[in-house]
Amino acid sequence: MLNFSFVNPTQIHFGEGQISSLTSSIPQDAKVLVVYGGGSIKKNGVYEQVSNALNAHTWGEFAGIEPNPSYQTCMQAVAMVREQGYDYILAVGGGSVIDGCKFIAAAALFDGEPWDILGKGAEVKSALPLGVVLTLPATGSESNSFSVISNKDTNDKLPFATTLVQPQFAVLDPDVMKTLPERQLANGVVDAFVHTMEQYLTYPVNAKVQDRFAEGLLLTLMEEGPSVFGQDVSYEVRANVMWSATMALNGLIGAGVPQDWGTHMIGHELTAVYGLDHAQTLAIVLPRMMEEQKEPKRDKLLQYAQRVLGLDTSDPDAAIEQAIAKTEAFFHSVNMPTRLRDYGLGEEVADKIVAQLERHGMTALGEHQSVTLDKSRNILLRSV
Amino acid sequence: MLNFSFVNPTQIHFGEGQISSLTSSIPQDAKVLVVYGGGSIKKNGVYEQVSNALNAHTWGEFAGIEPNPSYQTCMQAVAMVREQGYDYILAVGGGSVIDGCKFIAAAALFDGEPWDILGKGAEVKSALPLGVVLTLPATGSESNSFSVISNKDTNDKLPFATTLVQPQFAVLDPDVMKTLPERQLANGVVDAFVHTMEQYLTYPVNAKVQDRFAEGLLLTLMEEGPSVFGQDVSYEVRANVMWSATMALNGLIGAGVPQDWGTHMIGHELTAVYGLDHAQTLAIVLPRMMEEQKEPKRDKLLQYAQRVLGLDTSDPDAAIEQAIAKTEAFFHSVNMPTRLRDYGLGEEVADKIVAQLERHGMTALGEHQSVTLDKSRNILLRSV
Repeated sequence: MLNFSFVNPTQIHFGEGQISSLTSSIPQDAKVLVVYGGGSIKKNGVYEQVSNALNAHTWGEFAGIEPNPSYQTCMQAVAMVREQGYDYILAVGGGSVIDGCKFIAAAALFDGEPWDILGKGAEVKSALPLGVVLTLPATGSESNSFSVISNKDTNDKLPFATTLVQPQFAVLDPDVMKTLPERQLANGVVDAFVHTMEQYLTYPVNAKVQDRFAEGLLLTLMEEGPSVFGQDVSYEVRANVMWSATMALNGLIGAGVPQDWGTHMIGHELTAVYGLDHAQTLAIVLPRMMEEQKEPKRDKLLQYAQRVLGLDTSDPDAAIEQAIAKTEAFFHSVNMPTRLRDYGLGEEVADKIVAQLERHGMTALGEHQSVTLDKSRNILLRSV
Repeated sequence: MLNFSFVNPTQIHFGEGQISSLTSSIPQDAKVLVVYGGGSIKKNGVYEQVSNALNAHTWGEFAGIEPNPSYQTCMQAVAMVREQGYDYILAVGGGSVIDGCKFIAAAALFDGEPWDILGKGAEVKSALPLGVVLTLPATGSESNSFSVISNKDTNDKLPFATTLVQPQFAVLDPDVMKTLPERQLANGVVDAFVHTMEQYLTYPVNAKVQDRFAEGLLLTLMEEGPSVFGQDVSYEVRANVMWSATMALNGLIGAGVPQDWGTHMIGHELTAVYGLDHAQTLAIVLPRMMEEQKEPKRDKLLQYAQRVLGLDTSDPDAAIEQAIAKTEAFFHSVNMPTRLRDYGLGEEVADKIVAQLERHGMTALGEHQSVTLDKSRNILLRSV
């Protein structure tokens, strides 16, 4: 096990009816900006529940944070915060809205050009307090300090992180999943699965608790993921998927173990250039990354094959091949394509994405920094 | 899954050499009272590491917190805090020292008779900040808000809990386990195991993540526990046991699931009356509790048999019997007796402990409140 420091200070309120806890979770004297996305919360009852809970608060709203939240849209919210003196941000949405709100919370108090937080890694010295009502389990952003923001003008998709933007609380009510489109549900399951894999499928450091926890999340997502679609889904299936997605990226399973994140870095570029959903890119890249890194990841691939997939590993090479095939089959089981051609893309992608990786300094990815640009190109070519 | 609220704000610093992080974890201007137990920390290098880390701080010390920390001893420390104006408590020890320090932190600022916090459940309105250097992995007290204090005059052993006494940080350096006596190591493994069981072995609520996490801890403790003794133990074995013990009682695996704690309630009385170590009492009571509650716990006993012990459950009754036998065998594998007679005690225990339970209002224990005093008597009689 590697040395680590870990804390997660986000207060979780989990379960049916928990949106009402907003009333006491946000200070009574706060001036709250409620930030959301395309307006689905007005159709599924979430907006109404939030309004009711904030009945005695002073609040306004900003709508229109898009998937892959853009710097440009976020800066409109920042202007509104500054002009109207909001001092608390409430994100009501999925990972995109939450990531956007993290940037809004930091940018509103930033002294200088806020793009520098992303483009130059400028230090965030303060941020407005942030709370979350999660409407789409997927990214884990509701209880971590990471955010990824896109620049529509430059095709950049860049991360920043600071504990100052970690949500103070997050409301997780599985009932909000009832009205989610199938595509978003599939995105969530795949995103949570790949988050777990990025922290698990590296090399062994004999961190038994972390390994068992990661395997528990993978097993749960594989068991519940394919059943999460439709109106007749049980509350428990939704609850298990939602809690898995939060636990997959709240820092716990990654504490004390090596991490990869190469799949994410390549995936981010695919989204930035071709507009694919984040999870769609992960489902394409992960199986190819597993193939490309078969040797350095050998021990963990076998552990995954055995403990998560229940495969016979007496022929290790065959087991690894099966494990990769079963991972891809799992993505298919939640109706998630795993090839570039499924989106009308071909070999031309490789050079374009490699150029993007190079431009962003992503020339050595993975837990050993051994995924060179050449290997990334191979991964992309094999992804066609 | 049941609704829940969960947060754990204790900052964990895990790994070799982490005691040095005290320097920056405690405010520079704090006046720190370092509280410890019998002085073993002066022989194993921990005291020296703490002293070095606090080189630039103002600090004093209070030694002598005993196993099953007593109200009487804690009140001596409270007097010292009040007289000398300490404003930060640093617990250096295992669960007893930490539990004692939680009470000291609360009692020092309590307006009235501090025993009322325990005896009458009086509300704690403030407490001194508390940090921890853990020297014995076992109770999980280093990152939770619970404390159990004994009254030497009255044979009471009573709990209190408030987030005000949750440690701000906890340093977990597995190297401190090198010099622990075998009895304390065994106590730690058993304590962590039974903490997990109290939150796992109840009835199913389809909380898949919580179940998998609990099973991961049980598996890890069963794999690593028997190897934790002696000088030649690898760092990883110690680290896995230490992290398991913290995760077993930091609130995570118990969030959203029913909990039992009947074994603990009976065990506390055994310690209060006969002076057995806490874990010794748990190893006696748990197997008997499993037998007594075989029917209400049936589904979870079978899940435990299958997933943790790898047993064939095609004959469910036989599998449950084997599961109980294997649990007891695991305790023996860490040199932990499982019978009252191993401590020279017999049937006379039953009436005495039942009277204690009655006196403390523990007349209906367990996840269904179905363990009546008669059932507790059965459990004790079978424990001989």
